[in-house]
Amino acid sequence: MQAMEFDLIARIRDRAGGRADVVLGIGDDAALLQPPPGAQLALSMDTLNAGVHFPTSTAPADIGWKALAVNLSDLAAMGAEPAWCTLSLSLPGADAGFVDGFLDGFLALAQEHSVALVGGDTTRGPLSVCVAVHGFVATGAALRRDGAREGDDVWVTGHLGDAAAALAAMGAGAVSDRALRARLDRPTPRIAAGRALAGLAHACIDVSDGLLADLGHICRASGVGARIELAALPASPALARFAAALRWPWQACGGDDYELCFTAPREARDAVAQVLAQAATAASRIGRITAGQDVVAVDDRGEPWPTSRGGYAHFA
Amino acid sequence: MQAMEFDLIARIRDRAGGRADVVLGIGDDAALLQPPPGAQLALSMDTLNAGVHFPTSTAPADIGWKALAVNLSDLAAMGAEPAWCTLSLSLPGADAGFVDGFLDGFLALAQEHSVALVGGDTTRGPLSVCVAVHGFVATGAALRRDGAREGDDVWVTGHLGDAAAALAAMGAGAVSDRALRARLDRPTPRIAAGRALAGLAHACIDVSDGLLADLGHICRASGVGARIELAALPASPALARFAAALRWPWQACGGDDYELCFTAPREARDAVAQVLAQAATAASRIGRITAGQDVVAVDDRGEPWPTSRGGYAHFA
Repeated sequence: MQAMEFDLIARIRDRAGGRADVVLGIGDDAALLQPPPGAQLALSMDTLNAGVHFPTSTAPADIGWKALAVNLSDLAAMGAEPAWCTLSLSLPGADAGFVDGFLDGFLALAQEHSVALVGGDTTRGPLSVCVAVHGFVATGAALRRDGAREGDDVWVTGHLGDAAAALAAMGAGAVSDRALRARLDRPTPRIAAGRALAGLAHACIDVSDGLLADLGHICRASGVGARIELAALPASPALARFAAALRWPWQACGGDDYELCFTAPREARDAVAQVLAQAATAASRIGRITAGQDVVAVDDRGEPWPTSRGGYAHFA
Repeated sequence: MQAMEFDLIARIRDRAGGRADVVLGIGDDAALLQPPPGAQLALSMDTLNAGVHFPTSTAPADIGWKALAVNLSDLAAMGAEPAWCTLSLSLPGADAGFVDGFLDGFLALAQEHSVALVGGDTTRGPLSVCVAVHGFVATGAALRRDGAREGDDVWVTGHLGDAAAALAAMGAGAVSDRALRARLDRPTPRIAAGRALAGLAHACIDVSDGLLADLGHICRASGVGARIELAALPASPALARFAAALRWPWQACGGDDYELCFTAPREARDAVAQVLAQAATAASRIGRITAGQDVVAVDDRGEPWPTSRGGYAHFA
């Protein structure tokens, strides 16, 4: 491949972390990696484009963090242990300052999860970041979308709606609450929670397109429906302060939360609470899996919430 | 991740090939893959941006072919056997016709090498394609850049300069020769040659930035120099016809050839010729590895070729 600037690659290589299972990292035609015996490989790749997946005003370090976080969130949703990543960075020009800032955020999160950056490229083009992540999961233990069963509780980690609130504030020209903006720019991939739930939860997905849309994917893959109690959706103090009237739309249909939505049998409630406490991850039961194929959200009086707000019926 | 259009993903999933070692392909948060026991994983990722890595007039099927080809070429340069790939496609709009055409080219090449498309995403943004490829190589058998030794022959597969000639013709507003344009749009990844050379060649790289620049990477990594005989550089009949006077600059410094440049000991000449004949891949000896650190190209009288034309001394 035609690389943009060799000294940008050197900048990245000099700071990329290592692991014992990385035989050959950045600097050859391909990386050489040694998978552990007996494990399956979980692999995800996602692109973030400027102005589409992050506001153009986002700080380079936050772009770096988020580009890795959204990918690690996919591994979390499979219950996988992260190991390696590759990074393809398209930049309008050879901006070493941007790359340094980007790496500050990217590598801080990589280090937190012992992820080695083993390859990729830097090319000229509109600002865009493509990341692929690789993790391990014991054979048969992966959390998939197709295992939800009627009667399962529906859970979600953390809280929902902060990122949508931050985006809405920016769209209105308002200054975002700092805590909301941090949730938009620096989502927390729920790696520990995902690994704790492997073998316990029936189905799992990360909430990136909005809770109802993403739960719709679980329901479609599993051939079931779901009923969600809006009043049970966990909200941060910042969201509750910010605009209580818009809480439900943001929580139910907003994107970019990167929490895990999962289903588990009623008998596993105590076990779920226990493993997530060990994983230092808050979680809430927010509804249950039903027969049929509809994802229904009800308000605090049990009345169906008008679907016109979200358009999520499209995905159910 | 926020996907652009779910029906685009469905279009891709419906056509992606399978393999026995793909436990779970497109459609969950991550793919699940079963690496073979004892093998190392070779991993490469490259992005192609419109107007930078391919002319904006390129047909969708050719963009698809090339996006996979440049990545498979990296695996070829490691001597690896391709297995899986992921695709992240950024498009200005949900253009199903473009996606169908793109897949025609991408999947034709994938099928040729038994590569399964296991994941990725489609997002909104300027036209850009990021592909990651995964292959297997026996432990210790990978072709690296750092193994060249003084006295090695320098070889190159196929012929050089066609892609640069096609680009130059387009830049001049001329109609490219069809054969030259095909070499620009549909490069052939030298997978069979790379696998045949594993354990035999000392060092290998694919020629994407220009022969002298890429050989410079081998020399720098190996702590050696090289002397290249320009008159020995293999040229296609189309190139010889097209513009003989520009043959050497295009061959020595043009990019996008995706041939393999490799070094091997003199005693291995017959063995190299034999395994490449079995791999149905032409190859030429074009020079030798020297002491020192300079990459020198000489003309047919043995005189050094002016380095100002290529600027490749920067890379040596």
